[in-house]
Amino acid sequence: MTPEPIKAFIARFARLPAIGPRLATRLAFYVATQGEQTIVELAAALQGLATLDLCPQCFTLKPRSETTCAVCSDPTRTPRVVAIVERDTDRMALERTGRYHGRYLVMGELPERGVLEPEHRRRLTYLADRIRRDAGGKIDEVIIAVGLHSFGDLLAGLIREEFQGLAKKITRLGRGIPTGGEIEFADEETLCAALERRG
Amino acid sequence: MTPEPIKAFIARFARLPAIGPRLATRLAFYVATQGEQTIVELAAALQGLATLDLCPQCFTLKPRSETTCAVCSDPTRTPRVVAIVERDTDRMALERTGRYHGRYLVMGELPERGVLEPEHRRRLTYLADRIRRDAGGKIDEVIIAVGLHSFGDLLAGLIREEFQGLAKKITRLGRGIPTGGEIEFADEETLCAALERRG
Repeated sequence: MTPEPIKAFIARFARLPAIGPRLATRLAFYVATQGEQTIVELAAALQGLATLDLCPQCFTLKPRSETTCAVCSDPTRTPRVVAIVERDTDRMALERTGRYHGRYLVMGELPERGVLEPEHRRRLTYLADRIRRDAGGKIDEVIIAVGLHSFGDLLAGLIREEFQGLAKKITRLGRGIPTGGEIEFADEETLCAALERRG
Repeated sequence: MTPEPIKAFIARFARLPAIGPRLATRLAFYVATQGEQTIVELAAALQGLATLDLCPQCFTLKPRSETTCAVCSDPTRTPRVVAIVERDTDRMALERTGRYHGRYLVMGELPERGVLEPEHRRRLTYLADRIRRDAGGKIDEVIIAVGLHSFGDLLAGLIREEFQGLAKKITRLGRGIPTGGEIEFADEETLCAALERRG
């Protein structure tokens, strides 16, 4: 009863993160009733993504036509400090602060938190090898900028092991009350950290 | 800093219902890192929607190659009972019951509840005209199958006015406790309706 193209759209879009069958269904009918112009625009926006690939140094998305990403090719960004993030969007958030002047390593999203896939390990090893080869075996700092949840703690442990001896400091983003955060809604662990780091 | 194609994707997809900038950003990076095959599949699924148009009788989405939708072209479905729904997905829900054998009129989604656009009115008038012209001025029943929220009540009033004298009965879907619904969580209006309709 439901037209095939609607079913096909739902089947494919439902597999995207945070979409699922319900939203995919809503989108299918919405888009189909918006007419051809909308479809052309959306398809063009999608196909534009095919002009991107990963920076060979930090695995950030970059235009295929450029050798490395904007940060890696910026001579004012020190290669002696590297922040390890999970996603491009984490990297974007750090860039928005305007306070970070080092480089990055994007590990790639961990589909099920708790599982480090070969690709994630490959990227960490690649950075370690580059430090050994191009940076005289030691950089100034590795910043572990992954989420402060329990899997993040596990991950931080793994990263620490990998970079032991390859950086003067291995640090992690500070835990504390977020700006605008209510004390009463903070969990105990955050509050303890906030107390310890008070000042 | 963010590559243009990512920005363009976010700008366009954020305008879809229930997507917004946050999810559009997540999708952009997700899709871009999945590689070309994923992009090709998603674009094909999108473009498939362009092969659909609206049934000229009930405004349901149908393959462009067919004259009317599957329900309107089914001789076992009586044109003397018409259910007026807001969305194709509401129509799908009624079809799934397997208990409805009449036809439909899809009004089109009301973007801001409370506002009836000219297109919605045009479709209602079109049905009224068809009843006058092709059905001897009166059908058996118009079922108002719109949501049972306060705007639905307003809408039901408008529909009742439009079809006054054009149907032997103008009914509305029954209000009551949903299957599996907890009595204690039902709102008062629903409970009152459930009491009145008990049996």
